[in-house]
Amino acid sequence: MKPFTHVIPVSDALRLVREAARPIERRERVTLTDAAGRIAAETLTARADVPPFDRAAMDGYAVIATGTDGATADAPRRLQMAGVTYAGDAPHAAISPGECVEIATGAPLPPGADAVVMVEHTAREGADVLIREPVRAGRNVSHRGNDLPAGTAVMTAGQWLSPARVGALAAAGVADLLVFAQPIVALASTGDELVEPGRPLGPGQIHDVNRYTLPPVIAAHGALARHLPPIGDGLDAVHAALDATTGADLVVFTGGSSVGDRDLVAAAVAERGEIVFHGVAMKPGKPTLLARLRAEADAPAGRLFLGLSGNPTSCLANAYVILVPLLRLMGRLPAWQPRQVTATLGRDILARAERHEFHPVRMDGDTAVTAFKGSGEITSLSHADGYIEIPAGTGRLAAGTPVTVTLFSP
Amino acid sequence: MKPFTHVIPVSDALRLVREAARPIERRERVTLTDAAGRIAAETLTARADVPPFDRAAMDGYAVIATGTDGATADAPRRLQMAGVTYAGDAPHAAISPGECVEIATGAPLPPGADAVVMVEHTAREGADVLIREPVRAGRNVSHRGNDLPAGTAVMTAGQWLSPARVGALAAAGVADLLVFAQPIVALASTGDELVEPGRPLGPGQIHDVNRYTLPPVIAAHGALARHLPPIGDGLDAVHAALDATTGADLVVFTGGSSVGDRDLVAAAVAERGEIVFHGVAMKPGKPTLLARLRAEADAPAGRLFLGLSGNPTSCLANAYVILVPLLRLMGRLPAWQPRQVTATLGRDILARAERHEFHPVRMDGDTAVTAFKGSGEITSLSHADGYIEIPAGTGRLAAGTPVTVTLFSP
Repeated sequence: MKPFTHVIPVSDALRLVREAARPIERRERVTLTDAAGRIAAETLTARADVPPFDRAAMDGYAVIATGTDGATADAPRRLQMAGVTYAGDAPHAAISPGECVEIATGAPLPPGADAVVMVEHTAREGADVLIREPVRAGRNVSHRGNDLPAGTAVMTAGQWLSPARVGALAAAGVADLLVFAQPIVALASTGDELVEPGRPLGPGQIHDVNRYTLPPVIAAHGALARHLPPIGDGLDAVHAALDATTGADLVVFTGGSSVGDRDLVAAAVAERGEIVFHGVAMKPGKPTLLARLRAEADAPAGRLFLGLSGNPTSCLANAYVILVPLLRLMGRLPAWQPRQVTATLGRDILARAERHEFHPVRMDGDTAVTAFKGSGEITSLSHADGYIEIPAGTGRLAAGTPVTVTLFSP
Repeated sequence: MKPFTHVIPVSDALRLVREAARPIERRERVTLTDAAGRIAAETLTARADVPPFDRAAMDGYAVIATGTDGATADAPRRLQMAGVTYAGDAPHAAISPGECVEIATGAPLPPGADAVVMVEHTAREGADVLIREPVRAGRNVSHRGNDLPAGTAVMTAGQWLSPARVGALAAAGVADLLVFAQPIVALASTGDELVEPGRPLGPGQIHDVNRYTLPPVIAAHGALARHLPPIGDGLDAVHAALDATTGADLVVFTGGSSVGDRDLVAAAVAERGEIVFHGVAMKPGKPTLLARLRAEADAPAGRLFLGLSGNPTSCLANAYVILVPLLRLMGRLPAWQPRQVTATLGRDILARAERHEFHPVRMDGDTAVTAFKGSGEITSLSHADGYIEIPAGTGRLAAGTPVTVTLFSP
């Protein structure tokens, strides 16, 4: 066993993660139904005007605006109703001065009409309509091309497809589009001690936790988790697992990356790529390993390898701090903006001076109370509402100190 | 055509939505892989201690703590190495005073040992280990049951399953659990003018937008959207569509709910249930309709009906304001906390005094600029970053006014 010799500051580690991350270039075609949340990989232009005709924006009467001049409730203008147009109907025949057409929201205006009087400002009298308020030309009309004139860009490559942007594509008649592929993450736990939940434990064994905590984080940040079987003992087993990751953009192994005679993961990765860093002055996360894998027969160069602690609390905490920014850069998603609140520290926290600490806390009103039970305890995180960061060199953080809590909740 | 006669304030509408929402009682069993983001429907107790044995929390040497008293770098204590235990191994045989066992993080302590000396504080000398710093009993040990003692609750019914809570369930060996079912939302667009994107438009026709904008919002807030075919013309068609919704907890129809001779949706719903409200003093969203449906042959009483404007901008804006809180209450999710920022209004907004207005804005640095092009324009929302609320009675909102912007981005 030997201790880490090259531990780097957390700020350096995060910078190296940003530098190593390559946005995915693969594209794929999706239908509009599957487009929300994805990143457009092409610029799309409206081929026709949206809307394609002058439409009523209100229920009411399509009129020639000048014919309503001077109308009041006491002295309404009387118009003759020439017909009715509902949404989906073809437009009514042209109207002449003195005429109007009853019109539903979304229906096409008849030629000649240039405004709609809201039904609330009218009254019916047999075949006549009394207009009780004047309208100006263009009032309550959604003009042809007003939303998207033909030839304008609806969407440019690289934009995140919000529900509203998907709606704009639908309005322009786009049925499918190219989006950037989601990063594929090959995920495996190492450790002979790991047993699936639901199966009995033998001596020295525990249940595998990381294969359940990481996939929802990976999915929430736009990537696809692909599970590999747990990695057994020996360098050959680690190499066999790496052989099975050639289709992945990022390989994440948990465990097996600490110091020790059996640090086989770091050894195997070093044989197949370039270690960017191994050992970070952060707590938890000291054994974190980032590497760039070389090209192999079935896989291009530049695939990344991230080794996270096998310890469930450390693994999940590091996933929020290291894995999430990496995935979002690879997936071209906007930077994560975790929810943060300001709180007062409820009790002293004695931090190690030499490491940057991500310390889980529970919120009790406006007070943040440590939820840390020990780095091996998954309940440290399941009872926490978020974490505070304690920079290296801080040491004791006194009760009453104002702190910024980064919340886990979305 | 007749105008709305019973328009209620938006605060009343939101209160009635909250009162009408019934949390789903159905439960279903999911495996741990599918549990994240769901709501536990049972209380789960750890059947055995977690961890199930005293484990090393660090790589190092398992020792009898008293045997390290007084150790220093200059005057180390010399212990005899009795063996090695890796994670996954059964524990080593008991150690006696003067002995230690090399131990990896996560491996079981040998009987007799009560602490672990970190590898960094030791040196090897043949079969001996030099201990250069004393440890107290319990140091660097994760004790049996320290995380979850047998019999303690891991999860209580009603809790949201964060990745960390799923991890705690995995640690306790839980392979599957009961969760509350997700609300099922039957969704249909009404309007003879609607054509699927990708198909050509006839006179008076436009592309259907709402069937693409609502599903991602519904999915993001924990519910399952089930599409019905577009609803054609006539009261019979609306009734046939309602007949097809018996498996849904909530029915959402868009369009057909404004004033007018052809307000067939409101008519059909009134025949099959109790209208809670129809008409809200908000912009957009005046024609919003909420109803409680009566029991029918295939469906229980209490299913809700929500009628939203067919206008894409209004429909999506109202989904954020009305549908999201309703879905989260039905799905037992914590209240939505949309992201909000404070900004300065860039240009005057002339609001209608009689209605509460949800006004889309674009953020330009710290300045909020209106993105509103007209209620029929879907690009009002696709170019907006969020919205500001302008209470009824405000009228003109002057440039320079500080405003709170609710952002659409997650």
